[in-house]
Amino acid sequence: MTIPQFPDLNPPTRILLGPGPGMTHPRVMRALTAPTLGHLDPELLKIYAEEQELLRYLFQTKNEWTFALSGTGTSGMEAALTNLIEPGDDVLSCIHGYFGARLAEIAERQSAHVDRIEKPLGQIFSLEEIESALKKKKYKLMTIIHAETSTGAEQLHIKEISAAAHKHGALIVLDTVTSLGGIPVKIDEWDIDMAYSGSQKNLGAPSGLAPITASPHAREVIEKRVKSISSFYLNLKQYANYWGGAHAYHHTASASLHFALREGLRVIAEEGQENAFARYRANAEILWSGLEALGVPPFIPLEYRLPSLTTAKVPAGCDPHKVRAQLLNEYNIEIAAGFGALKDEVWRIGLMGYSSRRENITLFLAALKELI
Amino acid sequence: MTIPQFPDLNPPTRILLGPGPGMTHPRVMRALTAPTLGHLDPELLKIYAEEQELLRYLFQTKNEWTFALSGTGTSGMEAALTNLIEPGDDVLSCIHGYFGARLAEIAERQSAHVDRIEKPLGQIFSLEEIESALKKKKYKLMTIIHAETSTGAEQLHIKEISAAAHKHGALIVLDTVTSLGGIPVKIDEWDIDMAYSGSQKNLGAPSGLAPITASPHAREVIEKRVKSISSFYLNLKQYANYWGGAHAYHHTASASLHFALREGLRVIAEEGQENAFARYRANAEILWSGLEALGVPPFIPLEYRLPSLTTAKVPAGCDPHKVRAQLLNEYNIEIAAGFGALKDEVWRIGLMGYSSRRENITLFLAALKELI
Repeated sequence: MTIPQFPDLNPPTRILLGPGPGMTHPRVMRALTAPTLGHLDPELLKIYAEEQELLRYLFQTKNEWTFALSGTGTSGMEAALTNLIEPGDDVLSCIHGYFGARLAEIAERQSAHVDRIEKPLGQIFSLEEIESALKKKKYKLMTIIHAETSTGAEQLHIKEISAAAHKHGALIVLDTVTSLGGIPVKIDEWDIDMAYSGSQKNLGAPSGLAPITASPHAREVIEKRVKSISSFYLNLKQYANYWGGAHAYHHTASASLHFALREGLRVIAEEGQENAFARYRANAEILWSGLEALGVPPFIPLEYRLPSLTTAKVPAGCDPHKVRAQLLNEYNIEIAAGFGALKDEVWRIGLMGYSSRRENITLFLAALKELI
Repeated sequence: MTIPQFPDLNPPTRILLGPGPGMTHPRVMRALTAPTLGHLDPELLKIYAEEQELLRYLFQTKNEWTFALSGTGTSGMEAALTNLIEPGDDVLSCIHGYFGARLAEIAERQSAHVDRIEKPLGQIFSLEEIESALKKKKYKLMTIIHAETSTGAEQLHIKEISAAAHKHGALIVLDTVTSLGGIPVKIDEWDIDMAYSGSQKNLGAPSGLAPITASPHAREVIEKRVKSISSFYLNLKQYANYWGGAHAYHHTASASLHFALREGLRVIAEEGQENAFARYRANAEILWSGLEALGVPPFIPLEYRLPSLTTAKVPAGCDPHKVRAQLLNEYNIEIAAGFGALKDEVWRIGLMGYSSRRENITLFLAALKELI
């Protein structure tokens, strides 16, 4: 067998304006290379404790079960559902984009009976629509996406939806992958049972960790399960006993990624998340008016348009995929195509965390103007 | 809610001589901070293709399904079993330490019927013992650990065990977490159906990725499943369609970790893995004779003692945990306690990848001499 030989790593320097990953903050890059610690080193356990406090601040929660799982945001989706669902459970999946549908698929893989309610791409649910679905059956839990990465829509009324779920005896699992750190997420005020996110969107860190938080009620449901959880790797009880409790070995977590996430969270805490949200919103408004001026208007109504992710309508006669490739190859700017039925209709432009900077917006708009 | 504020990250510089993570190679540290790429960037897909070639070299395989999963070695264990097992399948778990038992637990969480055969800690199986277990029932698969991280024993006769498994109609899943890159692993010559490892042991990279390889036969079994795989996150068919095929989005993989793993693998390929194995072995022999001279003899017979991980008998009258804490707190040297019943009997001393250097061994032996 010949031994493969490859040259030095030399990736291009991209300006990441897609739906995630966002750009890694330079302070996070430096933190990444701190000397590696063992997964049970008391110094790493201290870092976990700090990360937990920072995550509780971002999630606005007192939940003891607040961790960063050793996987991407998708592992957070799977952990939330795998820990809560037992075979045969009834689940209501509210789908207003690709990620809502992914949650339904994950629930079915756990042998749940899943009922779906769906909105066309680009719309969100009214409280009444969800409440009327909740009335039809006694669901163990409902799932909903706070910020749909496939459309750039923010699902509003989360507090009211959560109250409706609880009134009808269902738990609520909220996906905050694209919202956490970008818009307010208020786990305790909204009474959310389980929420998770990813390190690589608004948090300014590389991908690879999934912040997750579980309410005392969710925890009780997990502790009272009849059938054991199908996953060992994403088992939250074992996480709780590794991050806290006996600090028992569960898996060899990546100190490097935890150094990075702690630093990304610290950057947000130093600015104050409300200040960061206001800055992101102001930047998004500059992007939106620039796009309008170019005849590439945002697709989502202002009322529920996400500052962290904008879908913009491709002008008539323009090949969206050619423009996207030119942005990447000629300008080193990454944006994404639309999802599913919107594939040829919109671009997806992210301003996530450290990517949300005035210079990126001005450059992107100028480059787009040159290409369309 | 008060905003948590923490000081600059400032972890101590540890010399990692435990059972993993090993020390991150300085070249890998530099690769980690290359500019972040999106998970569908053509430049990242090129890096995956290179990583695959390097992993195939390390695994000594032509398997098309050779990837690095976005999780730790434990995610590799779970992926191997979750993809192959359907509820009610009969599984034979050969247990000669903690990780063998963990595989049995993961198989049971997938609703398999698991039969266990066990050896006392520090022993390995004979071919006859495994063959006689295989004769008792028609198993769908058997699991075995190549290098038991809990004892430092190398399970010999893997090629013959694999032939016996196949003769009796069972697939073989081989755990190579502590062996890959440290001792020869010959997936094709041994006819192994599924094997996996972790990026943080002999590969010199941070934790967070799990190399995995599946034979065409394993792939066929997965493709002919009746029940869908319980995991979306660790679904190998979806990995195959992300790393290859349509390069369809599956999850937001961490470019930073892939930069790191590619570099760690490249370091090994430049030296040639046989040369690296010889160097590790020579270093281990220096450690072993040093330990003998201190009255801390290796616990595992030379015949099947791992060069990458040595269990050494704690001398009478010595508090192993106090010495371990002193090594960490006074010398910044990490070693580990024994596992389970060996907790107070042995230390576990790893020489993995970049940790396996003469200066580390000399320092460790000198420090240990000062403490016992």
